[in-house]
Amino acid sequence: MQGRGEYVRLALEEAGADYADVARSERGMATMMKMMEAERGTPPFAPPFLKAGKLVIGQAANILLYLGSRHGLAPKAEAGKLWVHQLQLTITDFVLEIHDTHHPLGPSLYYEDQRAAAKKRSAEFWKERVPKYLGYFERLLQANGGGYVTGRRLTYVDLSLFQIVVGLRYAFPKRMKTFERNIPGLVELHDRVAARPNIMAYLASERRIPFNEDGIFRHYKELDR
Amino acid sequence: MQGRGEYVRLALEEAGADYADVARSERGMATMMKMMEAERGTPPFAPPFLKAGKLVIGQAANILLYLGSRHGLAPKAEAGKLWVHQLQLTITDFVLEIHDTHHPLGPSLYYEDQRAAAKKRSAEFWKERVPKYLGYFERLLQANGGGYVTGRRLTYVDLSLFQIVVGLRYAFPKRMKTFERNIPGLVELHDRVAARPNIMAYLASERRIPFNEDGIFRHYKELDR
Repeated sequence: MQGRGEYVRLALEEAGADYADVARSERGMATMMKMMEAERGTPPFAPPFLKAGKLVIGQAANILLYLGSRHGLAPKAEAGKLWVHQLQLTITDFVLEIHDTHHPLGPSLYYEDQRAAAKKRSAEFWKERVPKYLGYFERLLQANGGGYVTGRRLTYVDLSLFQIVVGLRYAFPKRMKTFERNIPGLVELHDRVAARPNIMAYLASERRIPFNEDGIFRHYKELDR
Repeated sequence: MQGRGEYVRLALEEAGADYADVARSERGMATMMKMMEAERGTPPFAPPFLKAGKLVIGQAANILLYLGSRHGLAPKAEAGKLWVHQLQLTITDFVLEIHDTHHPLGPSLYYEDQRAAAKKRSAEFWKERVPKYLGYFERLLQANGGGYVTGRRLTYVDLSLFQIVVGLRYAFPKRMKTFERNIPGLVELHDRVAARPNIMAYLASERRIPFNEDGIFRHYKELDR
């Protein structure tokens, strides 16, 4: 599935970085589990994680912090670096809440066992949380003149916001269609990111995993009235 | 309330830093709202945030990233810095799940309107999530010989784990009492942190906000069977 790793893939693809998506390779799951169970070093709690030379770095936002200044996807100066990272951590919170829309009673239970609760959570999510989170990013975009979220240069945050827009369109097509009139800047940002040559090539490739009902963004009709 | 700001307060207190807890001062809420609604600069999405000189830094883990190397609460070298930050982000995920135990149907609804769902979520939380998260940190502690989580020196992660242990004891005294036999390393870590002079002085002071039912760790008897 795309999972939280997708935010990292988008950054690596935009940067044209040479990387291997190990979890998707043969024996990929076993390799991944072995690294998580390592007795030494820095075993990550959960995927995604990046192996870069000797480093093993876990947590999507932390990986982006590491990749950002190396690949021109974030400012090099501390103030800008912290600002971009702060925005990514806000997106991280939002992604957890998106997951909660279909798993309000806990990530280890089946969706089928929490459908009624998922309906309630999804209603609250669209009434309160989406306007709050996306309204925040829309406001930043408007204050910046509408280029990219932190200014005239693309950062990994813009790539992640692209993924949020595409993901919400997949999971909640009806609700999102109505809501998009409130976020013209984010819709434009989505189009701007989708038109970047490396992203365009990635989205058309087999490296891009299609959305499905094992991931964070799931389409369940009854949650999208 | 303590909120996510508590992880920052513990770091500032351990470091003996000179800081002002503005939100608790007169007109503190108004000052805070004004900063969040700023048209320019780096307006944070939500509290907590730190004003340090000209910088305004949001997201607790991001603030700790900034404070860590400045106050000797994290390694200065990149690899160590990323490792400690990665652990803090894992704690951040756990804290969100702790909040979900009493607010599974959404943060904007009253607890009273989601008590049945909260019971189910709390059961799943203790069955699956607590063992997974705390088991991970316990394993790291044991692999390190039981000093601090990342080695022989205290980092901000140890302070946050102290808060997790105290918080779970407050919110779920019965469940936690039973569970603690599985995490002897974390219990010792808690005691070691609590005995540090600056932390001891802080906990005894009025600067430490008592736990209450507006915060992340809430004691509801029915969730702690």
